[in-house]
Amino acid sequence: MSVGENKITALHPVPGIRMASVAAGIKKQERNDVVLFEISQQATIAGIYTKNAFCAAPVILTKKHMSQAKPRYFLINTGNANAGTGEKGIEDALSCCNKVVQLTGVDANTVLTFSTGVIGEFLPVEKIKKVLGEAVKSLNDDAWLEAAMAIMTTDTRPKAVSYQIPYEDRFITITGIAKGAGMLKPNMATMLAYIFTDANIEKNYLQTLLEQFADKSFNRITVDGDTSTNDCCMLVASAASDIEITKSSPVSVEFIVCLERVFVELAKGLIRDAEGASKFITIKVEEGKTSEESLNVAYAVAESPLVKTALFASDPNWGRILAAVGRAGIESLAIQAVEIWLGDVCIVSNGRLDENYSEEMGTEVMAKDEITITIKLGRGNAEEQLWTSDLSYDYVRINAEYRT
Amino acid sequence: MSVGENKITALHPVPGIRMASVAAGIKKQERNDVVLFEISQQATIAGIYTKNAFCAAPVILTKKHMSQAKPRYFLINTGNANAGTGEKGIEDALSCCNKVVQLTGVDANTVLTFSTGVIGEFLPVEKIKKVLGEAVKSLNDDAWLEAAMAIMTTDTRPKAVSYQIPYEDRFITITGIAKGAGMLKPNMATMLAYIFTDANIEKNYLQTLLEQFADKSFNRITVDGDTSTNDCCMLVASAASDIEITKSSPVSVEFIVCLERVFVELAKGLIRDAEGASKFITIKVEEGKTSEESLNVAYAVAESPLVKTALFASDPNWGRILAAVGRAGIESLAIQAVEIWLGDVCIVSNGRLDENYSEEMGTEVMAKDEITITIKLGRGNAEEQLWTSDLSYDYVRINAEYRT
Repeated sequence: MSVGENKITALHPVPGIRMASVAAGIKKQERNDVVLFEISQQATIAGIYTKNAFCAAPVILTKKHMSQAKPRYFLINTGNANAGTGEKGIEDALSCCNKVVQLTGVDANTVLTFSTGVIGEFLPVEKIKKVLGEAVKSLNDDAWLEAAMAIMTTDTRPKAVSYQIPYEDRFITITGIAKGAGMLKPNMATMLAYIFTDANIEKNYLQTLLEQFADKSFNRITVDGDTSTNDCCMLVASAASDIEITKSSPVSVEFIVCLERVFVELAKGLIRDAEGASKFITIKVEEGKTSEESLNVAYAVAESPLVKTALFASDPNWGRILAAVGRAGIESLAIQAVEIWLGDVCIVSNGRLDENYSEEMGTEVMAKDEITITIKLGRGNAEEQLWTSDLSYDYVRINAEYRT
Repeated sequence: MSVGENKITALHPVPGIRMASVAAGIKKQERNDVVLFEISQQATIAGIYTKNAFCAAPVILTKKHMSQAKPRYFLINTGNANAGTGEKGIEDALSCCNKVVQLTGVDANTVLTFSTGVIGEFLPVEKIKKVLGEAVKSLNDDAWLEAAMAIMTTDTRPKAVSYQIPYEDRFITITGIAKGAGMLKPNMATMLAYIFTDANIEKNYLQTLLEQFADKSFNRITVDGDTSTNDCCMLVASAASDIEITKSSPVSVEFIVCLERVFVELAKGLIRDAEGASKFITIKVEEGKTSEESLNVAYAVAESPLVKTALFASDPNWGRILAAVGRAGIESLAIQAVEIWLGDVCIVSNGRLDENYSEEMGTEVMAKDEITITIKLGRGNAEEQLWTSDLSYDYVRINAEYRT
């Protein structure tokens, strides 16, 4: 199940970046489950990683390699997360990296590895190493959709976004892919995202951009409050276009708007395809005293199983939204000042059901696939928004059956 | 669905307390939905209430009446929560209270009112008032089970516990009833609990006992993290036995052990009958640095939809438990020191799958109805435990269909 159509427009090649997808048979036969990205030598690379204390082996190794050398390859596998695998997990990940080093002749420690899938089983290293030769041979610049498909786990569809920004007689290109359907939550979640541009961006500034936009996109989505041991989001600037992006360069405003859009569209794409999702929900919290309290209210509503099951049932059970707001831990909340809106229908005001509200009005909004819940706290100017999905039978089915 | 048998033993009358259950047709016809408790004049009464900012009208009124006069009646209805109903909700609750005052001749403000059910609809005051005469007439001292059944909402079975503690040639009696099946979580939840004894206990000490035992019972259960606008837990000491309980009275140790047992058994009874529950799960967190961090870990595991769906599927997917522990926000957690146990099987040690673990061992534990997950943090001596249930199709069905 997923919400809305998946409109993937043309995915533009990014000069300086090549990719290949191959089938190693990690969990299922006859599907691509290993992706190799090749990155040009002059590129800059930024990364953010899961904050889960049980960090998976590939994440530990990737952080180490990022601090040691400039990466030239990303090696991604699905079907096995190589998490909860201790020292052997790190050796396994390194063994795969070294195979790429051996095949391509790049320096040691310039291969980053990423894994997603079942936690706690050892990585089938030989299976992966066996197909890396084929991967290296088939590297090309125009296989984005295949890569987006190859990194899927319980995703029902690939997520990929691409934009081109005109600059003088040339273009800057941004193309990104992502995966992840459950365990999504701020501080990342079981999600992998790779966003590439051919702009030339200094490394520290690239890292700043990555953190800023991840915070407005992947860190503002939640399915079930769970986060993963394996999350990573990488931003790569290949510099191949020779167009420089700095805080003050002429094209940077347009570029930055587009880059944010790529992040947000990928993040929303994850929610539209969240496990069992039948609705795409935007939670806006306005008039908070601080961003923190606005976010707390947004999460309390977005992660309430009772709100989520009511959304699944298309039931305008506003009492559950009100109860979730009430337990969000806001100090001395004046409930008379709080307003709750379903789409453009005011459902709660003055601490009670709005006088003009009728069940028909609520039902009409709830029947839609995409619903915005707005909560006005009436205490200040801080605004936050989150995207989430409903809680359906399919969520339970998918997660009860995942390993079996 | 519910876990295990519901063994309700003899429910002893508590001298000084009478009760009646009647049918007002609030939500369904032909079921008792209104309960009246009569409390002797010399009784002491303690109460704790929801911390939700959207506190329901009856809770607001009950707190006010508790501060004004010594309560003589508890009036409880199911089918309608009288929450999110603003000023009118308070007037409606007061109108029901005043009807009891009029029928019984007690002083004003000595009736407490409690409601549970759908949020945001006005209380059908006339329906309730109409049956109060019958309720007053049928008050008797031996109708506990009827009362426990009459306060149910989505509960599939009544919860009631009773003990007698011998003292010289007499007994002290404790009998309690409770309701609540979803929205359970510390700081109370949509639950109502009424515990009565004929001991003689000074009011402040009674309040201390209530808070202490609620904290070890109703505040240590969680189904979905949601809490309610209507929770109340009341402890009443009628003094009719003339046996005094103080911190130092000879019988107080046995009494207090029994009183705690009544609280814990009622709380566990709520989890066994939680919405859609097919498993009863105990989460123990040991070796924490502080109680707070141990509780945080326990909640992260107990409320993880991924852990809960794995429990529903009887799948020893320990990776999900590990991921939940890892995201509980514990500062500088040394994952090598963490152990995770399923029943008496060690599944995680040294930051990875325990070397002696086999899938068969995990599957054997998971096949049981009652499962204990123990997490040893290896950082101190603070222990906490919680009780929770799994997340099943039935949970979604019940909560998606609740109003329709």
